[in-house]
Amino acid sequence: MLRRFATSLALFAVTALGSLVAPAFAQQTNSDPLPSWNEGPVKSAIVSFVHDATDQASPKFVPANDRIVTFDQDGTLWVEHPMYTQVMYCLERVPAVVKQEPELKDIEPFKTVLSGDREAIAKLPMKDLEEILAATLSGMTVDEFTVDVKKWLSTARDPRWHRPYTDLAFQPMLEGLRYFRANGFKTYIVTGGGQDFVRAYAEKVYGIPPEQVVGTMGGTKFAYGKHGEPELLKEPKLLLNDDHAGKPEGIHLMIGRRPCAAFGNSTGDREMLEYSGAGKAARLMMLVLHDDAAREYAYGPAQGLPETKVGTFTAGLYDEAKSRGWFVISMKSDWKRVFSFEN
Amino acid sequence: MLRRFATSLALFAVTALGSLVAPAFAQQTNSDPLPSWNEGPVKSAIVSFVHDATDQASPKFVPANDRIVTFDQDGTLWVEHPMYTQVMYCLERVPAVVKQEPELKDIEPFKTVLSGDREAIAKLPMKDLEEILAATLSGMTVDEFTVDVKKWLSTARDPRWHRPYTDLAFQPMLEGLRYFRANGFKTYIVTGGGQDFVRAYAEKVYGIPPEQVVGTMGGTKFAYGKHGEPELLKEPKLLLNDDHAGKPEGIHLMIGRRPCAAFGNSTGDREMLEYSGAGKAARLMMLVLHDDAAREYAYGPAQGLPETKVGTFTAGLYDEAKSRGWFVISMKSDWKRVFSFEN
Repeated sequence: MLRRFATSLALFAVTALGSLVAPAFAQQTNSDPLPSWNEGPVKSAIVSFVHDATDQASPKFVPANDRIVTFDQDGTLWVEHPMYTQVMYCLERVPAVVKQEPELKDIEPFKTVLSGDREAIAKLPMKDLEEILAATLSGMTVDEFTVDVKKWLSTARDPRWHRPYTDLAFQPMLEGLRYFRANGFKTYIVTGGGQDFVRAYAEKVYGIPPEQVVGTMGGTKFAYGKHGEPELLKEPKLLLNDDHAGKPEGIHLMIGRRPCAAFGNSTGDREMLEYSGAGKAARLMMLVLHDDAAREYAYGPAQGLPETKVGTFTAGLYDEAKSRGWFVISMKSDWKRVFSFEN
Repeated sequence: MLRRFATSLALFAVTALGSLVAPAFAQQTNSDPLPSWNEGPVKSAIVSFVHDATDQASPKFVPANDRIVTFDQDGTLWVEHPMYTQVMYCLERVPAVVKQEPELKDIEPFKTVLSGDREAIAKLPMKDLEEILAATLSGMTVDEFTVDVKKWLSTARDPRWHRPYTDLAFQPMLEGLRYFRANGFKTYIVTGGGQDFVRAYAEKVYGIPPEQVVGTMGGTKFAYGKHGEPELLKEPKLLLNDDHAGKPEGIHLMIGRRPCAAFGNSTGDREMLEYSGAGKAARLMMLVLHDDAAREYAYGPAQGLPETKVGTFTAGLYDEAKSRGWFVISMKSDWKRVFSFEN
């Protein structure tokens, strides 16, 4: 069983679905690397940070090798509502798992998932969800898994915009990724989601190669296939739960350096921002606040928004951000547009 | 306890110390990227592989993103005799550990290590060695550990050449690393040694940054220090034993792609070479054979060389290399010079 695997991944939230409003946005100019960001303290902070970190004359200069920027994924780089994309994948993979092991079809929680009853599925307790994740994310080679995720992503559609999930990356963040890379930063995803799942599309969607995806890590087992070919099988064994304290631990394991900038949106990112912020030279810590029900969603108890089970931006995290000088990105105020398909 | 940690690291070997002979070597020309390699099938294979992998017109072309080359460290990139450098570090760190926990001084195996009796130390059973590794590689922050390793390396001297261990990198392999990188390959170390230990010097010695060092991985624990500062403590907990089957598993965990070339020197590298060799397009698998007692060491039962406990190049591995088309690098015949300090 992937113990605690699910704690870093999933829960279901019932979210009011606002209508899609195409926002006005200013014309992009060549001189502005962040055209989807409104002018203001948040955008200025990003530009100032990059300037300080790359200016050899600045006391905050960061040597090229130490320019590491880490990004949470769900709710920071793309939409996480009404449920994490990976959980959607796991639920939709249940029929394939049951086909291989038919005796599961009358056993919970598989029976409930197969029923298609969304309300019942949403009520499944954590241990059932863990069982589904363990069953659907193991039992194949790593290459087969990547092929399957890519295939699923090519046909699956999100329930609100009826688009591929990979269309739901936030345009301002994509510009941020490119801006950092253009200035010699190495961009990493540091996600509570499954490392192999995110690797399957991170290069295409974010321009981030597999080796720069840090996620919740499952074990693999080296073996020889039917024809003697060496292969790696995905095992239902948790190596590292890359959430909360697991994020700095995962960063050390995979990168071995302290980031100089970090982006998140929930309490699961707190320790990553604290760890990144405690280093020397230029620093930038930012949290995305989902306060835009019209263009995306509005949730999290920070600033009196509705509490949900996905993406917990608590009032305590908001206070910590203010006291430590972390920036809060207001989706509503700071982003000129949210998605690339809006224009 | 770091269970099995030591199996990937250490054992002591009594090796005849040959005298150092400065070899003749041809003058370096600008046109030869591998001046310390003698002409022959091995050198030609490296050059042909790089040509095939980077030539868009070749059926063996490897896209830039997939140009991953992995190198074992001990015995492949630098000297591993008479014992692994990391074990030397751990043994020499015992007094510092005992100073912090004085009750250990009368307890085995610490008592034996403190005695300085080399013969008795060499006879310590595996479980004692594991205890020493666990005790000396944990109990400090990751930053403190890096500082300590660097400090130790700056003063420690190897017993044969009386030079810093970091001088004992093989010059032909350093040229190989640069040659690969100059052609768009990403070079990785994949070592049974401790990941954090090797990271402390890999950039300086090999030009390989911390995030490109895959090694035996210990856990860390995120915590707050005396003054509330976030820190990562090294724990005596094994996450992955990066040796034998653990090498391809570690490669997938840390890199997420199959290498197209891999270099090793012992049975611990077998699975890494098999896994790398099973991919498509251009491939290159090589094993260093230590057959040069005069300039370095001669050991391993392949080709009738003496068997030792460090670096087991067995006859079986030799046969597998021949049958799979892996190249065996004869240190004696293929390397014009072994160390940079020879000139």
